[in-house]
Amino acid sequence: MSYPFKPNPKLDLTLERFLDAPRELLWRAWTRPEHVKQWFTPKPWVITDCEIDLRPGGLFRTRMQSPDGKEVNDRHCCYLEIVPNERLVWTDALLPGFRPSGEPFITAVIALTPEGNGTRYTATAIHRDEATRDSHEEMGFFDGWGTVADQLADYVKTI
Amino acid sequence: MSYPFKPNPKLDLTLERFLDAPRELLWRAWTRPEHVKQWFTPKPWVITDCEIDLRPGGLFRTRMQSPDGKEVNDRHCCYLEIVPNERLVWTDALLPGFRPSGEPFITAVIALTPEGNGTRYTATAIHRDEATRDSHEEMGFFDGWGTVADQLADYVKTI
Repeated sequence: MSYPFKPNPKLDLTLERFLDAPRELLWRAWTRPEHVKQWFTPKPWVITDCEIDLRPGGLFRTRMQSPDGKEVNDRHCCYLEIVPNERLVWTDALLPGFRPSGEPFITAVIALTPEGNGTRYTATAIHRDEATRDSHEEMGFFDGWGTVADQLADYVKTI
Repeated sequence: MSYPFKPNPKLDLTLERFLDAPRELLWRAWTRPEHVKQWFTPKPWVITDCEIDLRPGGLFRTRMQSPDGKEVNDRHCCYLEIVPNERLVWTDALLPGFRPSGEPFITAVIALTPEGNGTRYTATAIHRDEATRDSHEEMGFFDGWGTVADQLADYVKTI
């Protein structure tokens, strides 16, 4: 049976990279708060809090803060699918316990595929409509998620 | 590890019943389109279409129609969790493939627990806030879901 999701270029945004790291390491960096805090927001923003309850219905929370501390983005998301070392899916359309959040923006799918000595890294943002997709692109999806992928690749060399 | 969801009476609505049927039968009635069509909307409304792709991220669609055919409710929901004979979770906050729907109303959790010769049947509607919960109650949650539970109990005697 095929996976029930295929990105739709009209609705979704995808960032794809080859990362020079084994996928087990990338998985670890994506699923432990102490690691996520080190790379998950484009510097000089920082992550001041991260909570992870790694199971379907569990919480994925990151609190991001601007360098001057004035802007804060505290996101409570819900994990949907967890396939260790392979695929991680969460959404802000639901809160922990699968509760509708009332502020549905994206579902994110992180896919890790072995390639040579490294990993094909694919991060997809799934949106409800073209307007949301386009606004996300204008907000700087490729820049932001690209910077974060670079930070991730650098960070995993240190763990 | 405990289940990541506990109903909150301020936000959620729960219908609980003892049903005189084995849970395997109730599970079958809940997960096959030809069965769902027979009992899932309070009569004299009818279900004219039902699609089920029974896996996390898969589609659960029901098209309900009023007796005069004038009113139609065509709901595209997404399965979140499937524990055969035990627990079924889906939401209208997501479309198939975990896509945010933009119209988040409920997540539903159906729990089936063996009790004597029958089943303790618990249907919970999870809402994002008290206003949504209260409006759902005013819309007739207990009546509607209760009628449907009666129809389910009657129907499974025929399969």
